[in-house]
Amino acid sequence: MDSTLTNSREATESRPLPPGWTSYTSPDGLTYYVNGCSKETTWRRPSSPAEAPQRPLARHNSSTYATGCHSGAKTGQRAETTTVALRKLTINKRPPGAVSPAKRQIKEVKETKTTINCVTFPLPGEGPEQQLLKPNEWSYCDYFWTDRKDPQGTTSVAGFEVLLQKQLKGKQMQKEMAEFVHERIKIEEEYAKNLSKLSLSTLAAQEEGTLGEAWTQLKKSLHDEAEVHLKFSNKLHSEVEKPLLTFRGDNFKKDLKKYDHHIADLRKQLASRYASVEKARKALADRQKDLEVKTQQLEIKLSNKTEEDIKKARRKSTQAGDDLMRCVDLYNQTQSKWFEEMVTTSMELEKLEVDRIEWIQQHLRQYTTLRHETDMFNQSTVEPVDQLLQTVDPGKDRELWVKENKTGEVRPVDMDI
Amino acid sequence: MDSTLTNSREATESRPLPPGWTSYTSPDGLTYYVNGCSKETTWRRPSSPAEAPQRPLARHNSSTYATGCHSGAKTGQRAETTTVALRKLTINKRPPGAVSPAKRQIKEVKETKTTINCVTFPLPGEGPEQQLLKPNEWSYCDYFWTDRKDPQGTTSVAGFEVLLQKQLKGKQMQKEMAEFVHERIKIEEEYAKNLSKLSLSTLAAQEEGTLGEAWTQLKKSLHDEAEVHLKFSNKLHSEVEKPLLTFRGDNFKKDLKKYDHHIADLRKQLASRYASVEKARKALADRQKDLEVKTQQLEIKLSNKTEEDIKKARRKSTQAGDDLMRCVDLYNQTQSKWFEEMVTTSMELEKLEVDRIEWIQQHLRQYTTLRHETDMFNQSTVEPVDQLLQTVDPGKDRELWVKENKTGEVRPVDMDI
Repeated sequence: MDSTLTNSREATESRPLPPGWTSYTSPDGLTYYVNGCSKETTWRRPSSPAEAPQRPLARHNSSTYATGCHSGAKTGQRAETTTVALRKLTINKRPPGAVSPAKRQIKEVKETKTTINCVTFPLPGEGPEQQLLKPNEWSYCDYFWTDRKDPQGTTSVAGFEVLLQKQLKGKQMQKEMAEFVHERIKIEEEYAKNLSKLSLSTLAAQEEGTLGEAWTQLKKSLHDEAEVHLKFSNKLHSEVEKPLLTFRGDNFKKDLKKYDHHIADLRKQLASRYASVEKARKALADRQKDLEVKTQQLEIKLSNKTEEDIKKARRKSTQAGDDLMRCVDLYNQTQSKWFEEMVTTSMELEKLEVDRIEWIQQHLRQYTTLRHETDMFNQSTVEPVDQLLQTVDPGKDRELWVKENKTGEVRPVDMDI
Repeated sequence: MDSTLTNSREATESRPLPPGWTSYTSPDGLTYYVNGCSKETTWRRPSSPAEAPQRPLARHNSSTYATGCHSGAKTGQRAETTTVALRKLTINKRPPGAVSPAKRQIKEVKETKTTINCVTFPLPGEGPEQQLLKPNEWSYCDYFWTDRKDPQGTTSVAGFEVLLQKQLKGKQMQKEMAEFVHERIKIEEEYAKNLSKLSLSTLAAQEEGTLGEAWTQLKKSLHDEAEVHLKFSNKLHSEVEKPLLTFRGDNFKKDLKKYDHHIADLRKQLASRYASVEKARKALADRQKDLEVKTQQLEIKLSNKTEEDIKKARRKSTQAGDDLMRCVDLYNQTQSKWFEEMVTTSMELEKLEVDRIEWIQQHLRQYTTLRHETDMFNQSTVEPVDQLLQTVDPGKDRELWVKENKTGEVRPVDMDI
């Protein structure tokens, strides 16, 4: 079948492509064809519209991904797609349709890939070097492909799960920050209450004159300070604490759950497809073994029956081979889908995290602004006291007091005889 | 005797004064003489040193009193004397030595003075107009000569007592101000304690990267604020409260008591002298009555015995007159002494009050200075937080987190058949 395909290729390469089809060249230099509508890809050059849909094989993820994902992506929306070609896959060097020949050859198939938790990766050193999707950006979409093993080694956490947990922790952090601010508010209110109470004290209320006025204002200034701190605590509440509490409400957790389930479902599908592949591989192996056995039997003893059996076995083997190809195709499609969703969703989580940090930064700066304001307003409560203290005048106070309290101005004189 | 004295005057006016004597003119135009050493004053022009000491009569308080009393007068020290002549007394229009003649004249003696609580004052409108000792200064020494009557009218409070009470109240005021400051200190310590405790909170401690650093600094800044307020409260204690408590310690009350007793003693002496005057006046009246009776007896019936009796009665009358003069002199001396002490001491109290007001003013300004400082130091605790918030960098935080938490960079590839 190899030769058949190859001949077809040479024969059809010069014909124009049917509508909807585009040709691409893989890094290997091999040409493959993509149907823009159905998104199917194939090695085989389509000859007419009637040939579509081809067997979807070795699907390349040439669908594109967002470059700068910060362009208005919101929770739940997909990132916009632009034309950044991914160089994700190493190409299956076997053109589509190739089946292990039913020859009695020991195939020296080098292991170039490995499947872990139903996800298929190239082995180290095998295949073309992978470039980062977003170099120098430490983007989520580049670093969370593998599942993280438990120290015990029994269970594992998906990389995506790590990203999700990060977002949930972020929500916890903002809640704790709000709590901290709340505690500060309580402290301020207590301070204000104490100052206000003390300002009403009648201590030294009997001091009169300019000194008495200055003292009265000094006591009053404590009430002014209390007002300043109360204002601070009120603004802390409305401009820092409350926003921290309400930023990304309950819906946020729901949205995160949606992401979680969506990606988890795709992994489940992948696992199911992988199971099918394993099953089909085994079935093929069985059939090939059977064919081998029967071929050996023929070599021992020619017989029509055995020849019939061999034909049957060969047909079954071919079918099993086709089944395997289909299973592998389906697997690869599903993996590609998961891949796409991983990139899109992790970019959204990345954006959420940037937004979260910037939002918190902004509101903590509001906190420091309020602190500055408070200290400034507080300074001004002392000024009237300063002014009155400056104008304290012992002479004037004496005049006031003497006018009020004098007993008599007539001085004594000598007594007459 | 009148004529004798008058002739003596005319005779001696031209002679030079003996050493130590100076002549002055009273507002009445009458000349009197003062011995600079013994401080005695007399109407009679001294003719020789041997004539000193004269009978101390109608003592003028020409001793001088401090003008500006703020020149370093301390508790217990006397005010410095400068040369300010007092125009205290109305002059006794009778030259010293004049006695009511033993004639049968109804003397038309106009009441020009009145004695209240043993202190002698001119009646309203009588005598030369009194000028204030310290005009335009509302000085204590001008306004507290009379005793203040109780509303009920039974007891009275000496003017000096009012001045003394003012000083004691001042001591009470400073104590109450110290108490107020103490309460403020407690409020500040509570506030500092609360801030410090909150700064140790582990809320949102899991926030990492540049945002985590900014948050950590924000929490720490509360401890810095606590330090500022603690420093404030410590300085309030050492620079305001403690001085207010210790300014004019227990010795002050003792000194005030000394003043109190000193002046009260002089009043007691004056009362005693006054009693003597009253007694002498009565004795003289009795003697004059007796002389009158005997003279009448002679007019009825001449007799040697009656003439003898009249001579005796006349002698006794003269003696009683002399006694009265001496008593009045002693009274006037004592009153003058009291007068002097009143002026001196009330000036000292005045100075104490000026010092008190200025001292308190100074320390309350220390309070406002500390408040200013505190607000400024407080402002600076926010600056490191501001700086770190400015440098919050979501990209850097992502890099840090991804490096720490990534699961795997190798991207999945298509499975081979």
